[in-house]
Amino acid sequence: MIEKNNLTMLTDFYELTMANGYFTAGMQEDIAYFDMFFRRVPDKGSYAIMAGLEQVIEYCKGLKFEEKDIEYLRSKNLFDEKFLDYLRNFEFKCDIWAVPEGTPIFPYEPIITVRGPVIQAQFVETMILLLINHQSLVATKASRIVRAAKGRPIMEFGTRRSHSTTAAIYGARAAYIGGCAGTACTVADEEFGTPALGTMAHSWVQMFDNEYEAFKAYTKAYPTNATLLVDTYNVLKSGIPAAIKVFKELDPPNKGIRIDSGDIAYLTKKARAMLDEAGLQDCKIVISNSLDEYLIRDILLEGACVDSFGVGERLITAKSEPVFGGVYKLAALEKDGEMIPKIKISENTEKITNPGFKSLYRLYDKDTDKALADVIALHSEGLPTAEEIEIFDPSHVWKRKTVKNFYVKCLREQIFKDGKCIYESPSIHEIKEYCKEQMDTLWDEMKRFENPQTYYVDLSPELWKLKQDMLEGKR
Amino acid sequence: MIEKNNLTMLTDFYELTMANGYFTAGMQEDIAYFDMFFRRVPDKGSYAIMAGLEQVIEYCKGLKFEEKDIEYLRSKNLFDEKFLDYLRNFEFKCDIWAVPEGTPIFPYEPIITVRGPVIQAQFVETMILLLINHQSLVATKASRIVRAAKGRPIMEFGTRRSHSTTAAIYGARAAYIGGCAGTACTVADEEFGTPALGTMAHSWVQMFDNEYEAFKAYTKAYPTNATLLVDTYNVLKSGIPAAIKVFKELDPPNKGIRIDSGDIAYLTKKARAMLDEAGLQDCKIVISNSLDEYLIRDILLEGACVDSFGVGERLITAKSEPVFGGVYKLAALEKDGEMIPKIKISENTEKITNPGFKSLYRLYDKDTDKALADVIALHSEGLPTAEEIEIFDPSHVWKRKTVKNFYVKCLREQIFKDGKCIYESPSIHEIKEYCKEQMDTLWDEMKRFENPQTYYVDLSPELWKLKQDMLEGKR
Repeated sequence: MIEKNNLTMLTDFYELTMANGYFTAGMQEDIAYFDMFFRRVPDKGSYAIMAGLEQVIEYCKGLKFEEKDIEYLRSKNLFDEKFLDYLRNFEFKCDIWAVPEGTPIFPYEPIITVRGPVIQAQFVETMILLLINHQSLVATKASRIVRAAKGRPIMEFGTRRSHSTTAAIYGARAAYIGGCAGTACTVADEEFGTPALGTMAHSWVQMFDNEYEAFKAYTKAYPTNATLLVDTYNVLKSGIPAAIKVFKELDPPNKGIRIDSGDIAYLTKKARAMLDEAGLQDCKIVISNSLDEYLIRDILLEGACVDSFGVGERLITAKSEPVFGGVYKLAALEKDGEMIPKIKISENTEKITNPGFKSLYRLYDKDTDKALADVIALHSEGLPTAEEIEIFDPSHVWKRKTVKNFYVKCLREQIFKDGKCIYESPSIHEIKEYCKEQMDTLWDEMKRFENPQTYYVDLSPELWKLKQDMLEGKR
Repeated sequence: MIEKNNLTMLTDFYELTMANGYFTAGMQEDIAYFDMFFRRVPDKGSYAIMAGLEQVIEYCKGLKFEEKDIEYLRSKNLFDEKFLDYLRNFEFKCDIWAVPEGTPIFPYEPIITVRGPVIQAQFVETMILLLINHQSLVATKASRIVRAAKGRPIMEFGTRRSHSTTAAIYGARAAYIGGCAGTACTVADEEFGTPALGTMAHSWVQMFDNEYEAFKAYTKAYPTNATLLVDTYNVLKSGIPAAIKVFKELDPPNKGIRIDSGDIAYLTKKARAMLDEAGLQDCKIVISNSLDEYLIRDILLEGACVDSFGVGERLITAKSEPVFGGVYKLAALEKDGEMIPKIKISENTEKITNPGFKSLYRLYDKDTDKALADVIALHSEGLPTAEEIEIFDPSHVWKRKTVKNFYVKCLREQIFKDGKCIYESPSIHEIKEYCKEQMDTLWDEMKRFENPQTYYVDLSPELWKLKQDMLEGKR
């Protein structure tokens, strides 16, 4: 819908200069492996939620250079005509492996690997990063906010503060995956089925002579379900009394009030008492006003009486940390059928990459079904079959632990084979449900907002040895 | 391009429930005035840059409900069939006044006013806020970063960390308006003409046996202009020596190196010395690595030798404060030809709105052409013609100042009349140039990053009296 059009040209310009460079150097058919991974969870959390893969698939399926794109590129006086011909006849030929959406993911894990002609596997970098970074950012933030609300529904209300149109639409999608109950974004409901809700703005109330008239008109228009915004003038003195009067007169079966300003803890306690006093125990209280996981936690700690939350700018922009730092790095080459692992060395040890074509496994406890550790291994090693595995922290190798009584799950699926999509994305509702199930496999200690427990992500001994050998220059 | 499709359904759901409510209450032809304004400049700055208007115009021109939208709305079992018919035949009839893009804007100024049938003037709220909030956020951030760089070009490099596709594209547009020299975002160049640049990633270097081979291949592909990324392994020990060797051998007329990690101040000083020593005084040094205005200022203070900057995630997401808090509030109604001003009262005095249909003027000093103050007045007052104006701070009315020797400019233009666009957007290059000129009319004291001087934004005495009367319940 929003993006039926071709996003092929949404790419960092250097993807094109490199592509032309590989082409003119005769390297266009060299096979390369690239990994997408991230180094740090936003907000000092311990986990992130994978999201955005469906859009990556749509993007790769739709790759196509139009004649106007070729014309534009020619006008830059940088590109070889034969390269432009190559683009004109571009046919995607890569293999892609990826972690399904909704999966909790951890730093340094290869959440996506792309294998293919270097010119292509490199080219898709920009959009893979853009799509996965954005949706994983918002899904992760949503997961935190939903947790803070302790079972109360969270509605995503951030469209107007989002970073342009697709940020709103795919942000609503990601927030739903992360656990939100719905969104204010109408088109996200129309396109993805993430339930849209909404009632009135302050302007509705101002359009009438007083709150009573405004609420009555609204409840007449929606006689079965009316949530009334009670803070246009004064919540306790005029807003709630007017709402109570209308609810008594028209008695909609589903009643609610929304408070969007002021001291939420104080106002909701007073509001609850006034509503109960009036016999409106069934009237829900909805709040919204620059909320995030920290504020929701604190408001509930203060005993606020809230049935559901609308969360806007701080969710849709992930305001406390609006960057998900996924990167895309060369991991290996194939030369004459042989795999040549590649490593990026850095003064900053955390910027050193894991070489080779890899797989990613999760070990679950057989009794509790809790996730015990993830293992990054060379793809050629296959699924771990031993009954015991000794795992160790790759940065602190003396930290060792023997894992027993577990079962293993391969965390990645092959998504593209020879350029053809061989994976069917689950429905958004299935993804949301899967995310919830997978979150339940993580220990609560990992979900704290402050100083959460770090999850084990280990390298297989074979991968670890390869990396050490490469760092020491032995390979 | 990206949005040839219809964005009509990208709206907060409450715009539709209110619209249906106005319709069923028989109020759909009531004429309302809404103002967009913001209350606070991000990053504690004193000014923001208006951006996004061209996209608002495209949106309003394209408003149209498709049959599938009607079907979707019908499925919600909330909307009157006659209302759905109204949507099916929707014809935009509003008037819009707006501040042109590139203009420095200040809190509480009505940067956009929409007048029209309430059902329509309300409906466009979500997209006007979304588009203006996003681009003004990025343009404002870009303006700060450009200032920190003291004349050195800033390239916008944030596509991969942007909040989805349109955040990247329109973010690149806004960054250019705010003063960036160009972008890495190819499609922004293709569509808007914001110059795209880019050279190589670390993976290019890794694809070859060593940096020398990688740089040689690149410079052969781009013999007139090569910027080489020198930090894949070790900047001073291997990267720069290899770059020097290639520049000596192939001598491209335009030479540059890019450093993307490590201690920038230290490395660039060493790099400059090594390049100069090799007779490569003409080789430029480009840096990039999580930069923003604060880091650029500090790096330059340390004497870093930098010719241009690539700025990514901290610009495209406005990381230090990723929300531009524009709001859209009812300001007046027309009833039987009479103007009825409306005000939103709040316990928080800064949330009280300015009532009525207003205009916005800027007073410039006749001798220096510097901006002296802005005046918000009732539209009916017309342009100020007095030779002296006494202005006062609307929150602190004892703070008074007499302004003389000035000329007046009306800051807003009418964009739509009876639903037809009567305004032609300037080219992106004209907007950028206009922004630069207008920024020059602001005193440097307002452009500090810490504790900048606050600009005068005053209410005309007539508007001030109206507001006081309404607050005191006299009207």
